[in-house]
Amino acid sequence: MDFSKVVIALGGNALQEAGTPPTAEAQLDVVRRTCEKLADINFKGYEMAIVHGNGPQVGRIALSQETASRIDDELPAMPFDVCGSMSQGYIGYQIQQCLRDAIRNRNRNIPVVTILTQVVVDEHDEAFKNPTKPIGPFYTEEEAKTLASEKGCVMKEDAGRGWRRYVASPIPRRITELDSIKRLWDSTIVITAGGGGIPVIENMDGSLSGVAAVIDKDLAAALLAEDIQVDYLLILTEVDKVCLNYKKPNQRDLDHITVAEAVKYVREGHFAPGSMLPKMMAAIKFARRFPGKKAIITSLDKAVDALEGHAGTVITMA
Amino acid sequence: MDFSKVVIALGGNALQEAGTPPTAEAQLDVVRRTCEKLADINFKGYEMAIVHGNGPQVGRIALSQETASRIDDELPAMPFDVCGSMSQGYIGYQIQQCLRDAIRNRNRNIPVVTILTQVVVDEHDEAFKNPTKPIGPFYTEEEAKTLASEKGCVMKEDAGRGWRRYVASPIPRRITELDSIKRLWDSTIVITAGGGGIPVIENMDGSLSGVAAVIDKDLAAALLAEDIQVDYLLILTEVDKVCLNYKKPNQRDLDHITVAEAVKYVREGHFAPGSMLPKMMAAIKFARRFPGKKAIITSLDKAVDALEGHAGTVITMA
Repeated sequence: MDFSKVVIALGGNALQEAGTPPTAEAQLDVVRRTCEKLADINFKGYEMAIVHGNGPQVGRIALSQETASRIDDELPAMPFDVCGSMSQGYIGYQIQQCLRDAIRNRNRNIPVVTILTQVVVDEHDEAFKNPTKPIGPFYTEEEAKTLASEKGCVMKEDAGRGWRRYVASPIPRRITELDSIKRLWDSTIVITAGGGGIPVIENMDGSLSGVAAVIDKDLAAALLAEDIQVDYLLILTEVDKVCLNYKKPNQRDLDHITVAEAVKYVREGHFAPGSMLPKMMAAIKFARRFPGKKAIITSLDKAVDALEGHAGTVITMA
Repeated sequence: MDFSKVVIALGGNALQEAGTPPTAEAQLDVVRRTCEKLADINFKGYEMAIVHGNGPQVGRIALSQETASRIDDELPAMPFDVCGSMSQGYIGYQIQQCLRDAIRNRNRNIPVVTILTQVVVDEHDEAFKNPTKPIGPFYTEEEAKTLASEKGCVMKEDAGRGWRRYVASPIPRRITELDSIKRLWDSTIVITAGGGGIPVIENMDGSLSGVAAVIDKDLAAALLAEDIQVDYLLILTEVDKVCLNYKKPNQRDLDHITVAEAVKYVREGHFAPGSMLPKMMAAIKFARRFPGKKAIITSLDKAVDALEGHAGTVITMA
């Protein structure tokens, strides 16, 4: 039997709930509920890989290290790419553990593993000229200037609250560990490219170096979906469907749109940057590359229904 | 062609050098040099998996989080199993990146990936009755008593320097992600069971739960070596050979010993707990299980020579 393949991009709400403490224990509870839904998708017969976000987690890892390093010289803060690798460890472990249990509860025995994933970005990516993602703690102006001159960090004043470091969000170009993901695909649920992947650049000699950057996890999921040529790119978020005029009186849910319509809505400014816009851009990218295949944006609760054509917003080429 | 298989256990000196700052950048330099040696082993035609230690790294991760959490309620410390998963991310990323580069420099193209690894321990392991591994910061007596009563931590006074948390070092029983390691083995260098693995117990219903414990990485490597039935368990450490009467006038290097001899030397107290003893126990375990196969203890520099029979201490059944 030939199963349909799906790459699932998990939004932040799949890992943390608003209003709960930012502890690993509270996150594990949310991850456990999320994995019940993911196991339902698997149980329906879909082969899947999972790409998760890491924004709040990597932010706290970096902030925690910066805070400790100010008190204790023996606890130096790690570079941001290393923080990303640590967040893949943290979140991957929780998903790996809970998803295995949820699948076993459905009387199946399918391995679930996390592969640490480096994603190559272009060092000449335009994004590096204008870093847009704030990371880590607030600094005084003096501290900010020291960081800028000594470490080359891009520091910006943040609405009167102090200075923060900003990093770029370049486009993901290549998943370094793709070969292993492919080898495991048939038998195994792979958690990969967590947080969009650990950002690395390729040097002149072909070696890799980590860089301080944030890769959009939906774009990384789209890249994986293209590489594996899956049937579905499933982007999970807080809403059941994408809307036009979101939260306005004339709000309208979208059931099925073409790439041309999606591009038009993007140009009309219907989707918020840092929220629905990157999801829609990832969906457009995948749907345009593979006419006949589907990108779907929906909520975790509606995921199975959406894959079966009864829910969510579907984006296709025609 | 049928290649020999080897599980390599990397000691702490393969990741950090005495006297250098405990930064990720300094560690990356050491890891890069280590990976040149590991690439040499691969180039000689050995199929390999790598198990690394994580003692200093996971200690600093836990300590850094505890330090930050005392200042900022929004930065709660993670449970120790999660710290372990983060250390697998951190160290695995560095090895994965540097080993890929070192192998490419030898004009080969062999994927290198880190698989996050949970290792099951027995919750009734005797080790849990007498935790022996100190982790994290020093506490005052009052803080220690609060941690003991509120979180059930085992706290011990540490030679007048304050109170510390102690965790158990139980025996590794099962590698949860073994199936994926086996599937990748033929094509790929897998970094796995970092720090001995993230310690988990199996609950009554078969689900897994992380526990605060430290698994000996040499014993975890021996378990992997048994599961894969490799030809060699290669335990790398600071010395070229195991010695009797170490650092005494009558010190004697060991070239080749049987399991029976090794057991005798262990009983005579030649090997220091927390140092050569766990390595020798791991070697004995593997050599006893597979008569005809070899456990080798040597340095990174002598690794290739040792595999070819010209260096190191070899432990075999007969």
